[in-house]
Parts: sequence; C-alpha cells; structure tokens
Amino acid sequence: MPLRLDTRASDFQQQFQAFLGAKREASQDVEQTVRAIVNDVVARGDQALVDYSQKFDRIDLNKVGICISADEIAAAQKQCDPEALGALSIAKSRIETYHRRQLPKDDSWTDALGVELGHRWTAIEAVGLYVPGGTAAYPSSVLMNAVPAKVAGVPRVAMVVPSPDGKLMPLVLAAAALAGVDEIYRVGGAQAVAALAYGTETISPVAKIVGPGNAYVAAAKRLVFGKVGIDMIAGPSEVLILADRDSNPEWVAADLLAQAEHDVAAQSILITNDAAFADAVEAALTRQLKTLPRGEVAAASWRDFGAIILVRDFDEAIPLTDAIAPEHLEIETEDADRLVGKIRNAGAIFIGRHTPEAIGDYVAGSNHVLPTARSARFSSGLGVLDFMKRTSLLRLSPDALRALGPSAIALGKAEGLEAHSRSVSIRLNL
Amino acid sequence: MPLRLDTRASDFQQQFQAFLGAKREASQDVEQTVRAIVNDVVARGDQALVDYSQKFDRIDLNKVGICISADEIAAAQKQCDPEALGALSIAKSRIETYHRRQLPKDDSWTDALGVELGHRWTAIEAVGLYVPGGTAAYPSSVLMNAVPAKVAGVPRVAMVVPSPDGKLMPLVLAAAALAGVDEIYRVGGAQAVAALAYGTETISPVAKIVGPGNAYVAAAKRLVFGKVGIDMIAGPSEVLILADRDSNPEWVAADLLAQAEHDVAAQSILITNDAAFADAVEAALTRQLKTLPRGEVAAASWRDFGAIILVRDFDEAIPLTDAIAPEHLEIETEDADRLVGKIRNAGAIFIGRHTPEAIGDYVAGSNHVLPTARSARFSSGLGVLDFMKRTSLLRLSPDALRALGPSAIALGKAEGLEAHSRSVSIRLNL
Repeated sequence: MPLRLDTRASDFQQQFQAFLGAKREASQDVEQTVRAIVNDVVARGDQALVDYSQKFDRIDLNKVGICISADEIAAAQKQCDPEALGALSIAKSRIETYHRRQLPKDDSWTDALGVELGHRWTAIEAVGLYVPGGTAAYPSSVLMNAVPAKVAGVPRVAMVVPSPDGKLMPLVLAAAALAGVDEIYRVGGAQAVAALAYGTETISPVAKIVGPGNAYVAAAKRLVFGKVGIDMIAGPSEVLILADRDSNPEWVAADLLAQAEHDVAAQSILITNDAAFADAVEAALTRQLKTLPRGEVAAASWRDFGAIILVRDFDEAIPLTDAIAPEHLEIETEDADRLVGKIRNAGAIFIGRHTPEAIGDYVAGSNHVLPTARSARFSSGLGVLDFMKRTSLLRLSPDALRALGPSAIALGKAEGLEAHSRSVSIRLNL
Repeated sequence: MPLRLDTRASDFQQQFQAFLGAKREASQDVEQTVRAIVNDVVARGDQALVDYSQKFDRIDLNKVGICISADEIAAAQKQCDPEALGALSIAKSRIETYHRRQLPKDDSWTDALGVELGHRWTAIEAVGLYVPGGTAAYPSSVLMNAVPAKVAGVPRVAMVVPSPDGKLMPLVLAAAALAGVDEIYRVGGAQAVAALAYGTETISPVAKIVGPGNAYVAAAKRLVFGKVGIDMIAGPSEVLILADRDSNPEWVAADLLAQAEHDVAAQSILITNDAAFADAVEAALTRQLKTLPRGEVAAASWRDFGAIILVRDFDEAIPLTDAIAPEHLEIETEDADRLVGKIRNAGAIFIGRHTPEAIGDYVAGSNHVLPTARSARFSSGLGVLDFMKRTSLLRLSPDALRALGPSAIALGKAEGLEAHSRSVSIRLNL
C-alpha cells in the first residue's frame, strides 16, 4: 500500500519530513572496482576495452570492431518498424525546434568610462554520449542528449553503447543517425566512460560526457569529473500530480503508472483535496496494473514509494511541491495556471488534464532529461547551454584604465596582493 | 627556471603534452576526516559547530555566538580604510550592472498543432556562500559570489566565514553587507559546509553552496553534492599571455607576477613569437620579483610552473591556447581581435595592452570566479544562471493531444513502456 498523508493530521509535518528524507536507492559501493577499470583503460587503451567487453558483454571486439560502421547503422535502420521510425523522426524535429530557442546570445557593450565589456558563447569541442544497452535502451534518450548538443554546435558527438551478447537495439542506432551523432562505439560500462575521458587508440577523448547509466557508469562519471565535464547523475524518475475531483481518476492512475513502470525505485505521488477522488484513483490504478506488461515493476514502485497526500486546498500543496521539487509535475486542477505561477521547484510542469507526462517524454520537444531526487531545487533539465560555455571579454583603452585603475590598485593593496596593484600602476606610471 | 618550449623543436608535441598533463596540486586525501565531521554536524548540530570551532579556530562560539550580529558588521565597516571601502563600492556597483545583463528571459509560444510550450527561470530559494578566513580572505570574492546571487533574485544568501583566534577581516564583513548577504555565521571548514547543507538549530539549510575553500572545504562540497548543488571546485589560478614584441616587457612581466603571487601552485604562461622579447620579459620579471612583498610565493610559482612557449606566428598559438584552456587569457598582439575570434577555450579574455587581468579581478564588473585546470573546455565562469534554474512548461489541448498522441504511443510501445502509451491512449479513447 502506498503511503497516505493528510495535512490535517497533527503529526503531518513529521511524517512529511520522513517521507522527504526516505532514500529510494541503495547506494552501491562500486568505486574501487570502477577506479581499477578506469586506470586499466588509461594504461592499456583499446586492449582493455577488448578485454572488458569479452568479460562483461561476451563479445569479441577484435572480430566485430570497436567502431560501429555506417553499413551496420544502415542495416539497423532497415530493421526498424516504420511507424516507430516515423515517430522518432517527428520527435527529432520537434526537439530540434524547441532547443533552437535556447541558443544564447552573445553580448557586448561599452560603458560610460569607455570600458568594452561582453561575453561570447561557444560550443564544447567534443561531447561523449553514454547510452545504456539491454532493456534500458531508450532511443528517445539518444535524441534528448544528442539533438541539443548538435543544436549547440558541438562539432563532434561520440556515442558509446554496450552490446551484450552482440545485441544492439536497431532503433537506438537509427536515433543516433537521425540526431547526427558523429561516431558510435560498441562499448559500455565504466570502461566506456574512461575511454571517452582519456581516449584510446580508437576513441579520441572528449571534453564532456552526458547520458544515463547504471551504478558503474555513474561512479565512473564521478571519477573522471574534472578531467572532463559531466551532466547530472540521474536518480530514479518521479512524478507528482496535483489533481482535483474534476479530473478523470482513470487518467490520473494511468499517469502514476507511467512513472512507476520505469523502475522499482521510481516514485509516483498524488496530491488531492478530495479523499473520495484519491480512493477512486487508487482503485483505478490497482485495476490497470493487472493488464500492464511491466505490472510487477510498477506495483513494487507504487507499493514501496507511492504516496497520496490529502490537502485542505491546493494552496497547501504549494510548499509541499516546492519541498518535493519533483522531476515531473502534472497540474490537473481548475486553477492550474494560478498554481503554476506560485511554484518555484519543478523540473517540468505539465499543465491541464490533456497533458500526460509521456508526451513530454517523447514528442513535445522539451527535454526529458530532468533533475531528480529533489535537485530541481538547484538545477535544470538538460538543454543547449549544457553543451556551450561562456567566455567573458574585456578591453580597456588607456583612458578607461586611468579611470578604473585606482580602484583596482586600492583593492589589490587591501587584499595584500601587491603584484595585482603593480600590474595596473605600471601602466599608469604611478 | 620556468619551462621553455619552442614549436620548432622536433619533440615539441611530446613536451607540450607532458606540460599539459603535469599536476600542480598534490591531492590531499582528507575524505575520511571530512566524512566524520559532516556526520557529526548532522547528528549534533550547533554543538558540533561549537566543538570544531574551539578545536580548529580556538574560539568559543557559546560566548561570541554563531551568528555575526548587525552591530559587529557596523563596527567592522567603521574600521575599514575609506579608500578601500570606496573601491569596493565601485566594484559592487559595476558587478551588479554587468550581471543584470545576464538575467535570462522566460519564453512561451504555441506551435502549429496548438501545443503550448515554454520555460520559466526561477531563483534558487537559498544559497550558502563559503568565505575562507585568514590570509586568503578576499572581499572581492564575497562580491563576486554574492552579487550575482542577489541579481538572480535569491531571497536568502547565508555566508559562513571562519574566524581563527577570533579574527575577521573587516573588509570581508563590509563586502557582505554591501552585497546584501542576509546572514553571516562565524564558522568555517567542513563543519560549515555540513551546516549549510543539512542545517543546524541556528543555521537553516540551503539549496546550493558556492565559494572557494581549502582541501577540507572542497572535499565537504563534493560530499554534500546531490543533497545540495555546488559550484565548481576551483584549482590554483592561471594566466596565459599572448604577446608580441611591440608589447612592453615590464607590463607583461607584471601581469605574469600578478598571477604567480596568488599561490605557489599558480601558473603563468607566456606565448610569444619573439625570442628576444621572451628574454626581456624574463629579465623584467626577475627584477620585479626582488621588491615584491609576496616575492617568495611568486618566485616558486614561476620557477615550478611558469612557462614560455615560442611560436613561429600566433596562428600556431591558437590550438595551444585551446588545449591549455586558460582561466585567464591576455592577448597583447597587433592582431588581437582576429585571435579572439579564433579561440574556443578560455574563461575570460583580456584584450589589448591596456587590459591587465587585475582589472577583471576587481572592478571591470565581469566575474573573477572562472574555470581552472583546463575546465574552460567545458564550463563557464560564475554568473547569474548559476543561481537560477529553468522549469519547462507544457500544455496540450484535446486537439493537440490528438495530433501528437499517436507518435508518443508508438514510441512508448517501441521502448516497451506500455503504461506510457496507455496514459496517452486512455485520453484519446484508443
């Protein structure tokens, strides 16, 4: 049974804090293993990739090659279901259009003292994209990571994907081709992350690594961070739905299940002001579970991490929502717009009764890589800016230096950094 | 003697790669110590802060209080040198003006299918600012961290600063007041980072922690990352100067020293196309060193990590610069503008012979918190966006759902996520 909380209960705050603090993932301590793998790839390069792929994926890279060829990609495209391929193409085009609007503008101006100021955005020179193999292979995630990188202008996007027992999902390769990925390598795990960060004979190093992965991949990303940039380390997915009794309980139940089917550690939360509606959603959910292919996963997630919170009114839901800082927030209430304006912390907001989160996962155009585990309090979903960096620009004329110099000299002295002051005063003959 | 490289040498590439790969910091393994401190603060709150401050800073927080009072701040302001205070005020105002231009715009639009899309930026709800005590206490850094947070609209900025033996630099408190910092606590080290992340009886938790610190502070930030956001972990500072023989060797030497005086692990690099100019700079530097208060530090930095690279022409310098990805880049050449346009990787570029980096450190208005240790390849200096996050917004009408739904259903099926498909099809009576 999912947790039931009620803001009217005298111990609500305590219970809510305990709920917020509950961990959904056992942290696997794989750091030692991962460190050894990374060091080995640094030392032995391609040969280490061959050995680990033999061991973990049971494939011989000496036979099939580390790099996936254009012929293989073309063959994969032919194997794809045309309907899925068409949907993928629509998704790619919408993601591209959406993310183009995120392209930042350079800025430059001259102030009253004649100081020229500004900044310039440039794309990261090379980005690595990790794509999980096996059951968690999601072509939509390939698009969500690679398309913004290409919109940002990244000249080289190198993808790694493991092929356990030689198997690769054709639609994953098709998505990579569609997104304009430049290179694809048949490696996975910590060894693939190490190869992207440090390079091997076959794989040139990149400057940033993005994309989801298991505990080993996450640990490897943490380890190489600093040498290269990384995106966030994603936790299990979550949805919070605010719904009133005018919502359809079957629809709300379907949305809660769409989250729960991801992972036994996924989390679906309903906040409503109507106890009877809550009961109706729960009943609908139990019914829908019975015919769901991934019903066991969804049932475990809902049982262990699901929650229904009863509020007096939706104003009470605002601070609760900000504290939960959900990755996905659906608002299916009469006054949805008013609530949207009051909420600070959410990765993405899906407004109204006809906006199921799955649309955002696939075809809306917005990014589905979003901050999990309350990190929407301080971070954003993936976007074009994650593939660019800003350089500030400054130029002073002799006059501008004369005007600004004395303040810099004073601060240098105050901080005990005399050489700082001198680098200014020497130019002013002071 | 600093390293001398010449692109004409047959082994230049090897030597340059070795130079790039050289470490400037011994990594101190303080993680176990820091983990114990963080756990202790989580368990014992204020009392742990009292105990660690007694132990490390030799002060009794029970007597002087954890929170620094308004009276203390006012008294500190009175102790400051008026000239320094005036310079600080000019710096604050220029930093504010500069960063206001970074405020991002919300966006919303409706596409041809009637899908309403957009995103909204909001400020982070609470930010913690770490400020080192003792000799590395830089009022300018208080401004560089706190002002962008306030420009972003962060309602609560809480600062922590250790006061070893009860000592606090008055200008640091004055800078905090000037920048609009809301709370100041007299604690430092890993215990202060833990207090900001987890909260104690006196200090409410924040959502993100920024600011420089020693190895313990850096390790604590790494440890609490995820629970809260953090900024980059800064390494020793560095400058790369591209200068031709028309530059003044005394000025260039002064700029190299302004970097070198920061830290024995700081790095100053000169790239020039003229061997005689390189000699003149080196001679001037040796001369200027003799009268520098922090001459020992600067001499050690220049001896151990300084470098002069001779190039045939400045086009050769472009890939070298991109590989070094310097925190600070000064371009003092005839064709400076052309070079600026060709360089991808640098934290900040200072253009022309009258733009010493120290101006950017203090009063230009741009931020002096910049990516070190080659991380300008994938990250940017601190700015307003670091104190905000983006929420994506989506709303579909019944018609828009009918138009987009089938593609989402197809992709859900292709990925084996049936509940995703159902959350759409149930609304379309499919």
